[in-house]
Amino acid sequence: MGGLRIVDMSVRDIRFPTSDDLGGSDAMNAAPDYSASYLRLATDRAGLYGCGFTFTIGRGADIVTRMVEQLAAGLTGRRVDDMVDFMAGLLHDLTQDSFLRWLGPEKGVTHLAAAAVLNAVWDLWARAQEVPLWRLLVELEPEELVGCLALRHLEDALSADEAVSILRRRRLGRDERLAHLRRSGYPGYITSAGWLGYSDAEVRRRVTQALGDGWEAFKLKVGQDLDSDLRRTRMVRDLIGTDRRLMVDANQVWEVHEAIEWVNALAEVGLYWIEEPTSPDDILGHAAIARAVAPVLVATGEHAHNRVMFKQFLASGAIGVCQIDSCRLASVNENVSVLLMAEKFGVPVCPHGGGVGLCELVQHLSIFDYIAVSASLENRWIEYVDHLHEMFVAPVRVVGGRYQLPDRPGFSAELSAEAIQKFEYPSGTVWRAREPAAHE
Amino acid sequence: MGGLRIVDMSVRDIRFPTSDDLGGSDAMNAAPDYSASYLRLATDRAGLYGCGFTFTIGRGADIVTRMVEQLAAGLTGRRVDDMVDFMAGLLHDLTQDSFLRWLGPEKGVTHLAAAAVLNAVWDLWARAQEVPLWRLLVELEPEELVGCLALRHLEDALSADEAVSILRRRRLGRDERLAHLRRSGYPGYITSAGWLGYSDAEVRRRVTQALGDGWEAFKLKVGQDLDSDLRRTRMVRDLIGTDRRLMVDANQVWEVHEAIEWVNALAEVGLYWIEEPTSPDDILGHAAIARAVAPVLVATGEHAHNRVMFKQFLASGAIGVCQIDSCRLASVNENVSVLLMAEKFGVPVCPHGGGVGLCELVQHLSIFDYIAVSASLENRWIEYVDHLHEMFVAPVRVVGGRYQLPDRPGFSAELSAEAIQKFEYPSGTVWRAREPAAHE
Repeated sequence: MGGLRIVDMSVRDIRFPTSDDLGGSDAMNAAPDYSASYLRLATDRAGLYGCGFTFTIGRGADIVTRMVEQLAAGLTGRRVDDMVDFMAGLLHDLTQDSFLRWLGPEKGVTHLAAAAVLNAVWDLWARAQEVPLWRLLVELEPEELVGCLALRHLEDALSADEAVSILRRRRLGRDERLAHLRRSGYPGYITSAGWLGYSDAEVRRRVTQALGDGWEAFKLKVGQDLDSDLRRTRMVRDLIGTDRRLMVDANQVWEVHEAIEWVNALAEVGLYWIEEPTSPDDILGHAAIARAVAPVLVATGEHAHNRVMFKQFLASGAIGVCQIDSCRLASVNENVSVLLMAEKFGVPVCPHGGGVGLCELVQHLSIFDYIAVSASLENRWIEYVDHLHEMFVAPVRVVGGRYQLPDRPGFSAELSAEAIQKFEYPSGTVWRAREPAAHE
Repeated sequence: MGGLRIVDMSVRDIRFPTSDDLGGSDAMNAAPDYSASYLRLATDRAGLYGCGFTFTIGRGADIVTRMVEQLAAGLTGRRVDDMVDFMAGLLHDLTQDSFLRWLGPEKGVTHLAAAAVLNAVWDLWARAQEVPLWRLLVELEPEELVGCLALRHLEDALSADEAVSILRRRRLGRDERLAHLRRSGYPGYITSAGWLGYSDAEVRRRVTQALGDGWEAFKLKVGQDLDSDLRRTRMVRDLIGTDRRLMVDANQVWEVHEAIEWVNALAEVGLYWIEEPTSPDDILGHAAIARAVAPVLVATGEHAHNRVMFKQFLASGAIGVCQIDSCRLASVNENVSVLLMAEKFGVPVCPHGGGVGLCELVQHLSIFDYIAVSASLENRWIEYVDHLHEMFVAPVRVVGGRYQLPDRPGFSAELSAEAIQKFEYPSGTVWRAREPAAHE
């Protein structure tokens, strides 16, 4: 990458009118318009660039986009090899800057924006190496990768030395694991059959179709009404039989005692996990729920705002399933720290997918996790939602309910030119054709 | 307030060049320019308006200001009595809106902005009643006040009924407590003698002066260098003698084990509390530190982003001192929830002061706490920092190290016209006279 420089950047607010058909609706989010604050870093080598984004659900995306602009502004003119050689320094600048830290620290708008910027830098790095991101991660020397990680305030759970040891130990057998993924793919589970806004008939139709497509694990949104939840979980269980997995997701709507009562009322149906039962900040609450609803596992993470939250969820036994998100945590730098902690505490990682391009990003992290960290596929699935993949230049390929290895260079984060032209907000052709008020 | 309406609003980015003299410097924040995203709500009654703000430290304040604009936009045209009658609904709109929740939830930029908006509404309510905010709170019926509070996701620690009971029980003796405050004021402690960027000579000069002014409790910034911290804490202890209190503040710089080692190394000096020893998100880390450094107490809260974090800090024994902040929590609505939880768990509340106008706001909360919630002044002080008070129309009055009861209607949140004219960013006279780059 000798001498390669960032010479230009663009930041765009891209919004998809997903609220039109209630795809993505759940107990907390009635009518989201899935959005991406999308950054493209151009270099002085023709055809070499990096793309990254963070995911939001509509209104407020302009604020995040503006923060991405501010964070990325300092990258223009920088040498790419300096940036990746001093990835920890870049991470520090983006997340530990004292001014922006006051607005977090490491949470909310500032951290979402840091994720977008770092996602673009990792995409660029992998493209410059002409490998998919998962392969870049697998091939970095353990010390080199650990040097890129967000480890501050983790020492009581994971030191840099421990991180290196885990990665070094897992070199054994990695070729076999890679060969296995090439043959069989990485297992997924499907959420898009069970959005809360769908009618029973629509859920039935979608679950039946997903069964035909080969899916083995299904997630249903719950939390609005216990009778309705019981009816729908029973319906899905009847459709999928006793051998397939059924998970439910309450999107944070319950108090701790409500979560316990509700989940225990649903448990007869045979639930594998309850996701986001209460406030995503409530580590002790999740721990209390986990004790009271076992053997149903508690899952959370899509709103866990940084590695310090994951450290506590993992170390305290509050979660039995760890759900990372490449657009809320600070990209690879922070997600790999969480993968390593999850391995240390023996908790499987099942990433948050869906949204805009979350499946595209997190597949790289799960593939890396299997090859280089956990060495296990047991009780591990990548979430799958069946919308918006067509907006990407290199969409996920899922066959028979299993993610196929991405082989194109980069982090699979690039939106197509057509998607940008249609859905940039508010100037894209789709938005210009609408009443502005309809989606405000 | 019959028929009174919000007819106009203005939102301004106000920044003070505090980095010029390193006032406000600490181990995490080397050169802050203290800033306020400042909202003024005008009504259709001449001379009646409400002011509120949230506090940041410079760069990034424009992002927060823009978020305040978005949140406040919906208030124009609303009836004031509807807003205060349905304060819980307003709180819900500002903090539980699903779009903005995705950017938090209830943390970072969106929550800082919600604090600014709610601070302005409370200021307006108190002005409309022609009483200082503390008196409005004391005089509301317990059920009415509890109806205004942020209680979601707290039920395992504080139900609405418990909140009402605490307030009802504390009616006994409140006239005597009010009379005591009128006579003697509310105790404060002083931070502005011990900023990290000051020389030893400057700290000595300021501590000596503060002693002469009657202060009984002093806080020093630590965490950059142990030898320097030891030298400075010993110097201050020698100056203040053994009977006065000495607290130290590390502003989050340590790992958990570093905090334990460092505080135990300093403890010989006689420390009352260690503030922000590590990541403000690390509840379990604070609990481990608290166990290992006792009898030194652990204090935190200025970066605890919402009531769910305080619930855990309080319920787990992780903090011995609870530090609320009226610009990070969602104003009175959320702070009173925390005061009530702190009372339940027996932890004294010592609010975060300093910044821009934090002393002005939190004095109302501590006065209310003493009269109506805790009924105690033991081990309780409001932080005091000696800058920027002159920017306010009704600055705090501190005599002999004690806050005097504010008596003007409202929440003491109004900046003077002169302050706005000079320090609005970047159009104010002070900023126009500078090189733009100097503070970017």
